[in-house]
Amino acid sequence: MARRRRPTSVVTGIGDDSAVLRFEPGQDTLVTTDLSIEGVHFRREWHPPESVGHRCLVRGLSDIAAMGGLPAAAFLSLALPEDLPQSWVNRFLDGLLKLARRYKVQLAGGDIAQSPRQICADIVVIGSVPQDKAILRSGARPGDVVYVTGSLGGSAAVLQNLRKGRRASPRLKTGSPHFYPEPRIATGQWLRTHALASAMIDLSDGLSTDLSHICDESHVRAVIDAELLPVHPAARKQREGLELALHGGEDYELLFTAPSSVSVPNRISGVPVTRIGEIARYDRKKPQVEALIYGSKRPLLSKGWEHFAKGFAWQSEAEKSAHRAPSRN
Amino acid sequence: MARRRRPTSVVTGIGDDSAVLRFEPGQDTLVTTDLSIEGVHFRREWHPPESVGHRCLVRGLSDIAAMGGLPAAAFLSLALPEDLPQSWVNRFLDGLLKLARRYKVQLAGGDIAQSPRQICADIVVIGSVPQDKAILRSGARPGDVVYVTGSLGGSAAVLQNLRKGRRASPRLKTGSPHFYPEPRIATGQWLRTHALASAMIDLSDGLSTDLSHICDESHVRAVIDAELLPVHPAARKQREGLELALHGGEDYELLFTAPSSVSVPNRISGVPVTRIGEIARYDRKKPQVEALIYGSKRPLLSKGWEHFAKGFAWQSEAEKSAHRAPSRN
Repeated sequence: MARRRRPTSVVTGIGDDSAVLRFEPGQDTLVTTDLSIEGVHFRREWHPPESVGHRCLVRGLSDIAAMGGLPAAAFLSLALPEDLPQSWVNRFLDGLLKLARRYKVQLAGGDIAQSPRQICADIVVIGSVPQDKAILRSGARPGDVVYVTGSLGGSAAVLQNLRKGRRASPRLKTGSPHFYPEPRIATGQWLRTHALASAMIDLSDGLSTDLSHICDESHVRAVIDAELLPVHPAARKQREGLELALHGGEDYELLFTAPSSVSVPNRISGVPVTRIGEIARYDRKKPQVEALIYGSKRPLLSKGWEHFAKGFAWQSEAEKSAHRAPSRN
Repeated sequence: MARRRRPTSVVTGIGDDSAVLRFEPGQDTLVTTDLSIEGVHFRREWHPPESVGHRCLVRGLSDIAAMGGLPAAAFLSLALPEDLPQSWVNRFLDGLLKLARRYKVQLAGGDIAQSPRQICADIVVIGSVPQDKAILRSGARPGDVVYVTGSLGGSAAVLQNLRKGRRASPRLKTGSPHFYPEPRIATGQWLRTHALASAMIDLSDGLSTDLSHICDESHVRAVIDAELLPVHPAARKQREGLELALHGGEDYELLFTAPSSVSVPNRISGVPVTRIGEIARYDRKKPQVEALIYGSKRPLLSKGWEHFAKGFAWQSEAEKSAHRAPSRN
C-alpha cells in the first residue's frame, strides 16, 4: 500500500468486521460501529433495559473479537424519546457499563440527542492489534477447515419464544444467549496470537449469511456438515432447531477457518470449538455455501433470520455493504 | 496520568470536543461522535438531502477542528425508514462525500439499519494531533483574550426564516451558513501549529453556551463586548440579530482564547478572526459569562437556541455531559 501523506491511513475500510487504521507503524487500530434501534434490534416490552445496553456493546466488542483484537474504548450515541423514564436510561447504562468494565473498555465519549419516537443507540468500539495481524474475512483458502465457537441458534430460539408470546423468565434471561451474549474476545485473541486462523467473522447475522461473507471476501466456497453443528439446547428443543442454528443471528460466536495441517484445540479460553465443514475452490457452477443435511448436499442460501414481524429483518451485512457502497436494494 | 497496561489509553475522555486516545507515543488520536436526528437536527421538508449529509459530517469535522486536529477517517451509522426513497439516501451521501473529499477524509465504515420512523444518522470522525498538542477547553487563563472566527448568528437566522415559513431559495442555500457550513479545519490547525490558542471550542450550541463550557473547564469567567461581535449579515437583517449571534447555534466557527501578550492575526487561513472579549478570574459572586450590551454589563445565560417548536431544543453540551455522567435532567 502506497504511503500516504496523512499520518493516519485506512488499511482496511468497508467490508470486514472492523475497519483497520494505522496511526503509527507497529500497531493497527480497529474501529467498528453498530446501531441498536428500538423495534428493529430490541423491543421495550421484551428486553429489559440492562439487556439492551449489554447487547448494544456486545455488537461492537464481538466485531473487535472477530479481528483478533483487544477492545480499548467505546463511544455511545443515544437518541432518546422525551417521555422515556430516566430509570430506563440508568438501567440501560448499567447493563452496558457492567459489560464494559468486565472487558476493561472505557466509555470515552459519545453524544446524546432527543429522538421524536424510538430509542436509537450507536456504539463505536475502538481496539487494537499488532500491525498486519488483524484476522480478516479474506484469508480462507481451499482445503481449510471451518470451525465455530460455542453453540448456535440459542439467541434465535429465545427470540422465537418471545415472538410466540412466551415471555422468558428473569432467571432464564441472565444465562440466556439472547439477552446477555458473551463476546469471544479471549478466544479471538488466542487465535490471533497463535496465528491459527486464516479468516474469521463473528456470527451476528447467522451462519448461512456470515459464512457467505467469508466466501465472498476469500473468493472460495464452503461445505458444512449439518450433523456436526453444535446446536444450542434451547434451539434443539424446537422443531426448527437446525434452521435456527443455520440461519439464526446474534449468537456472537466466532466462525473461523484454519489450514487442515493445523491442530486446533477443541476448547479455547474455556469456549468449545467445533469443526463444522471445509473450504473448497470457488466454482461458479456450484453453490457458494452447501450443507450436508441427512446425507445429501443442499445449497445453503443466506437467510438473515427474520427478527420481528412486519418485515423487519435482521440487519444483513449484505445490506450494510450495499449501503456503504453507496446504494441499496 | 498513570501508565496503563493497555496499549491504548484514554488521555481525555468525556467533556471536550473530541476524546483524545493515545495508541503510540508521539501522536494522539481524536475521536468524536455526533447524532443527526430527523425532526430534531433537520427536517426533510426544509433541508435538501445533500445539506443533511453535509451538516452531518460538519458536526464531526468541526469537533476535530476545535482540537487543532487533522481529520482522517469517518464512520457513518444510518437508520432509515423503509419507505425512504433511494434517491434521498443517494443525495444525502453525495452531500456527505463531497465534503469528505474536500477535506481528504475517508469514509472507512459504518452501519446501516432499518428505522421504524425517522432518519437517524451518527457520524464518527477520527483525527490526529501531535502528542499533547490538542487544544482543550480547559486552558483559558485570567487576562486571556477571547476570539471568534467568521461571523455569528447566520445559521440561526436562516433557521428563523424557515420557521416563519420563508423557504430559502436554492441559490441562497448553496452559500448559506445553515445549509452548508464550513468546518474551520485549517484555522484550527494554524492555531495549533503556532501554539497561539490557550483554549478552543467550536460554536455548535451557540456562543453563550459554548463560552460557558470554556469557563467551566478552565475555572474562569468571561466578559464579552456585544458591540464587537461579528454578526452575520443574515442575522443583522433581523430584529433579534444580536440574540441570534449570542445564542444561535450551528455556526461551526471556532471560539478560542489566547494570552493578551500574543499577537493574533485578524485573518487566519482566509477566515476573519475577531476579538470579542476577555477572560477574568473565577468569582462565585459574579456571573460566569457577562456581556457588555449598549454600555451595561449583563449576565449572559446559556440559552441553547430553540431548534424547532414543540419543545425540541438544540442539543446542549450540558445535556450531553449530564447524560454521559450517566444521569440526565
